[in-house]
Amino acid sequence: MEIRLIGLPGIPLLTEGDDLGEIILQSLEKMDLPIEYGDVLVIAETAVAKIEGETIDLNSISPSEKAFEIALATGKDPELVEVIINASNEIIKIGPDFIISETKHGFVCANAGIDESNIELGFAKPIPSNPDNSATRIRAKIESSTGKKVAVVISDTQGRAFREGAIGVAIGISGMEPLWDRRGEKDLYDRELQTTTIAVADELASAASIVMGQAHEGLPVVLIRGVNYFDSLQNDRATAKSLIRPKKYDVFRK
Amino acid sequence: MEIRLIGLPGIPLLTEGDDLGEIILQSLEKMDLPIEYGDVLVIAETAVAKIEGETIDLNSISPSEKAFEIALATGKDPELVEVIINASNEIIKIGPDFIISETKHGFVCANAGIDESNIELGFAKPIPSNPDNSATRIRAKIESSTGKKVAVVISDTQGRAFREGAIGVAIGISGMEPLWDRRGEKDLYDRELQTTTIAVADELASAASIVMGQAHEGLPVVLIRGVNYFDSLQNDRATAKSLIRPKKYDVFRK
Repeated sequence: MEIRLIGLPGIPLLTEGDDLGEIILQSLEKMDLPIEYGDVLVIAETAVAKIEGETIDLNSISPSEKAFEIALATGKDPELVEVIINASNEIIKIGPDFIISETKHGFVCANAGIDESNIELGFAKPIPSNPDNSATRIRAKIESSTGKKVAVVISDTQGRAFREGAIGVAIGISGMEPLWDRRGEKDLYDRELQTTTIAVADELASAASIVMGQAHEGLPVVLIRGVNYFDSLQNDRATAKSLIRPKKYDVFRK
Repeated sequence: MEIRLIGLPGIPLLTEGDDLGEIILQSLEKMDLPIEYGDVLVIAETAVAKIEGETIDLNSISPSEKAFEIALATGKDPELVEVIINASNEIIKIGPDFIISETKHGFVCANAGIDESNIELGFAKPIPSNPDNSATRIRAKIESSTGKKVAVVISDTQGRAFREGAIGVAIGISGMEPLWDRRGEKDLYDRELQTTTIAVADELASAASIVMGQAHEGLPVVLIRGVNYFDSLQNDRATAKSLIRPKKYDVFRK
């Protein structure tokens, strides 16, 4: 029972308009590693944001009064704060050097996922506006070229409420259910399993993150091979939305 | 750049006093897979709890008044609630069918990690009382038998505040830093990385969880091979404590 996490070499510095699906196929061809049924491709959101060209020139931003207020409270630049506000449905918590908000997608995370790393100085890079669609475009390319059913996960690195350090999570998905529902399955003593829903897409994103970290930010795509329950997860229409806890069930936000 | 996640076959149903280190070595020998420097062994906490014999007979529990109160509010059995209270420093949130508390170890999770799955009816299984020590005992056994430096991670499956579904997390560790501190490293544009601390032990636990889920609860040990930054993580004295966000920095608990 083995799963392989393979970092794809030779992915160049990406720019707007690049065909990432094609670039992935070329990398796999150079490795002599043909796509197989059930392969999962995890792609760092930063790579997707770049090909989609969603960078923001911070010099073009005129901060609002609210942005100046939050900038003062957090020590962040008002222009960046304005970008975070614009990318958020709701600012949830602020403090010295942190802003936690709900993004337009519904994700609760720091700085609305806006990143100033791995981008030209003076620019900010938001999370792709629709990571499920981004994943679907790349999956369509790979499936139409290879004839194999695969899944694509768009990953981000995010912090957690109660634990230190950031981990890989799934913000977009295509081709598989992000949650693995094990209800009805039995434990070793033939009773119903208690922890019945596993966020397998997040686990795949975390697993890929271990490989992405191996090289100096140069491995934005990881192929995961050997998930033998792919059959029960396979779904052409699933999205990452089901990973988001609805606000009404969120007992910590109040 | 490849990492392998290998589920160890043939781990029997464990009972109190079993030498899990020895059992792991035997399984690896049968697979003809000798331990290598830098291997990480991820072990499900349920396996560790069993060999340590920390199961609780719910019939032996006399619930307190507070336990009856919380049982009424949550719909849980008063005996189980009493066990959860005893395993907790603080009850943080309760609601229909959930209790979130800080365990004696300091972890914020549901039901203080007390599990009724994979154990005889009428019994509950707490998280091992000192998972770092549990990890260290197993690591000592493996290192003394093989002469190779390895790391051991004790994993649990836990929910999250803002996301649906549970994922593998590290609750005990031995032989490596659980956090990978990348401060000072540069991004593609030669600026300091923003997300500088990665909870790599949690990512390893999540990666292993994907494999553990492959078989019907029959794969409690996963060997992870190929983490090429093991050198920078290697530490004989690190514990999982650094994964816990100190309460004073926890902005969601209030």
